[in-house]
Formats: sequence, structure tokens, C-alpha cells
Amino acid sequence: MTGEQPLGWGEERVAKDVVERAFAIEVAGRRVPGACWRPEGADAPTGLVMLGHGGGANKRAPYLLAIARWLARRHGIAAFAIDGPGHGDRLPPDAEPNFENVWQAPETTDNTIADWHGALEFVQSAVGTTPLGYWGLSMGTMMGLPLIAGTPAVRVALLGLMGVWGPTADRLRQDAPTLACPVRFLVQWDDEIVPRETALTLFTLIGSEQKTLHGNPGLHQAVPAQEMRASTGFLAAHLKA
Amino acid sequence: MTGEQPLGWGEERVAKDVVERAFAIEVAGRRVPGACWRPEGADAPTGLVMLGHGGGANKRAPYLLAIARWLARRHGIAAFAIDGPGHGDRLPPDAEPNFENVWQAPETTDNTIADWHGALEFVQSAVGTTPLGYWGLSMGTMMGLPLIAGTPAVRVALLGLMGVWGPTADRLRQDAPTLACPVRFLVQWDDEIVPRETALTLFTLIGSEQKTLHGNPGLHQAVPAQEMRASTGFLAAHLKA
Repeated sequence: MTGEQPLGWGEERVAKDVVERAFAIEVAGRRVPGACWRPEGADAPTGLVMLGHGGGANKRAPYLLAIARWLARRHGIAAFAIDGPGHGDRLPPDAEPNFENVWQAPETTDNTIADWHGALEFVQSAVGTTPLGYWGLSMGTMMGLPLIAGTPAVRVALLGLMGVWGPTADRLRQDAPTLACPVRFLVQWDDEIVPRETALTLFTLIGSEQKTLHGNPGLHQAVPAQEMRASTGFLAAHLKA
Repeated sequence: MTGEQPLGWGEERVAKDVVERAFAIEVAGRRVPGACWRPEGADAPTGLVMLGHGGGANKRAPYLLAIARWLARRHGIAAFAIDGPGHGDRLPPDAEPNFENVWQAPETTDNTIADWHGALEFVQSAVGTTPLGYWGLSMGTMMGLPLIAGTPAVRVALLGLMGVWGPTADRLRQDAPTLACPVRFLVQWDDEIVPRETALTLFTLIGSEQKTLHGNPGLHQAVPAQEMRASTGFLAAHLKA
């Protein structure tokens, strides 16, 4: 479906009191498709959350939709997501995602930060400037932690399922101590992809004074539903404080 | 003040909608003083929580009072605490607590379990039988984890600030896999008393399917206020489920 979505705002759909609208922007020649969610109705949202998807997922992964809807319906908070590099509509038709190749390219993290900054500016021009948060697990932390480090406006972040691990381990080790906003960090105790020890080390390195680790049993993708739900309350509490 | 409180229920005091009543029982020749808190008013409490204090504290330590009052006022839940062996009113006048001596005595854990069971029966005869929980950090886990292992009626437990550590490490290692109720386990990331690694190991060993670790920066006694408050919501959610 690459290329179908024209630049700018696209179609709008409303489901269960939440308005979802597609968009696409161009950043340094890269087409970046996104989706934005906001509570239906006239009131301005009380916050805005950037949602970073995991490896192999995309801007409309079911768990991101659930987070976006919880934020909108329960907390009156808007959110948006973009397809990561080599994911979603940025992947050529019929191509398989190849995470390792994408992650190993030395420019990927900085390009992704630029993509987020472009999308943030675009979304804020419609939603307004309101307290900003970040939510992203796994690749959503691999790319999101450096993003937050370079985005002082971020007031609160939900991170996790990542460690000082993989092709960008050095970047994560370097950026983690510079974080200053409150962070909740999720660890899956039996993570078969990101070894637990590397995740504990990354949490330890995070510089934020207010940081909390939530560890639960289970494999990488088995974060308990209650933990997912609670993550939106955590973001909302800090965005409204 | 040892010996002043006669056996049975003692004086009652009411503060901010919470009724506190002292009590003392005898278990196998040991005098066990306690305190019980319940919401003021006619309604029966919706749950009962055993509060285990830490080393050097006692049944009326300020943080236990805070937990008991949150449980009563916000959640309509009763609670009670007893002085641990060699603590509070069980310590001879002018004596200093000597944790190591108490903990090293091989019978201490089993005696403490018997003390709790005696107090539970006594309190239930007044409060009624209602869903049962446990809350205890540090020595409150050292003694409380084996208590829960031997008390199937406990539906939910808040534990932490303890590891496979100290004179009772073997007992903790042995009992942890037998736990079955939902557990939230607090770890202080910079704990200067109980090494973090031993705490992570104890959490790993806990057999409960539903268990969550909450880690926060800081020394042994520096659990964030928000974490303490949230612990009562965790207990309440499971006691009322």
C-alpha cells in the first residue's frame, strides 16, 4: 500500500468515542505515514502521547490501538504513532521486515528521531501544544529512549522490553543516563529475546530520579493486560500533574 | 511497658474515621501484643490484612499506621499487626533489639507463624471471616513469606525489601516456590542492607503465577510514598475481586 496515503491529513474514522485520522509527512526525503487518535468531542485533549511500536509491528498494531483508545476514552489524552523505519507502510510491498539490517544502519536512530520530531510538529499544529508523553516497548524503547533523550518536552515515558542489547546497545548505554523525566520500565522476567540482565542494566543506567521497574513473569510479548492498562494511568497521572 | 496490656481486647481509640483497638493473646506461653484497625461505622469490613513490621519497628510503626488507615478509609478493609519476636512490647524494658540473635534462633520463624495464626483467629472472632491479605516488607517478608506459605487462606500479598539473604535464607528459598497467591514484590534498587541480586533471586523463586516486581531507586528504607499508597490499592483490588 506504499504511497497510497497522500501527504497531509487523510481519512478520519470514529469508533467508540475515539477519532482516528491517518496522516503522512515527508522528512528529509523520507515519507513517514502515521495515525493520530483523539477523544471525540469539542474539548482539547489534556495531553499528547507518542506511541512507538515494536519490531515487526506497525503504527496500528492492536496493542497500540488499545493504548491509544484507553488514553483517549479514560483520560482525554490524544496520541499518535508513525511507522518505524522498514515497517508498516514504509516496507516495500511483499518485503519481509528485516530488523537486524534496519537496526544496524548507523543512521537509523537519528533518522527515526527526525521522523518523530517532524510528526510531532505536524500533529501539534492540529491538536495544539499540550503536555507530551512517550510510550514504547521493545523497538519502541530502542528508538524511543534516544528520542526522549533528545526531546526535553517529554514529561513522562513508559519504556521496556529492551536492554543494553542489540546493534544499538552503545547508543542506549550512552543516552540512558541523560533521561530526566519520570519513567516506568517494563521487564518480562522470562524474556527470550532481550536477556533480563541486559534490561536490568538499562533500567539501572536511566538517569531519571523518578523511575520504577515493573517486572512480570513471561516471554517477551506476554506483558499482562493489567500492566498494559495501568501504563496509561501512569502516563495520565504525570501529564495532568 | 511489657505486661501492661491485659490479655484480650484493650483500649479503643478513634482517629479520622478509623477505630484502633489494642489486644494481647497468649500463644504457647508467649504473650503476643497486637493492634487492630477497622473503618468506623456499622458495616462489616470487606477484607482483613495482616501487617508485618520490619526489623527494629513494631506493630504501631508510622508506616504501618499509614497503610492501616489507607486500607480502612479508602477501601473499607480492616487490618491488624503484632509485635514480632524481640520487638515492640515483647522486648524487655531498656533492651536494644538484636535482630541477628532473634533471626538465628531456629524456632523463630515457626513460632512467629504460630503467633500470627493465634492473632488471626482472635481478630476474626471479632471482625468476622472476610478475604485475607498480607502486607510486610523486610523482616515483614522474612517472617511473612513462610507465614503465607503456611496459610492458604491468604489471597494476596505485598512483600519485598528481602532476598535469599540472612540467617533464614534457606527457609525463604524453600518456601517461596510454594506460594500461589498474587504477589507484588518491592525492591529498592540501591538497598544497602539486602543486596539487590538476592532480592531478584527471591522474586524469581516465588511460585505464584501472578507476581509483579516493583523496583525503585534508593536505599532500604526509601520506598517512594506513591509505591506505599499504591500497595493498598493492589491489596484492595484482589480482596474485593
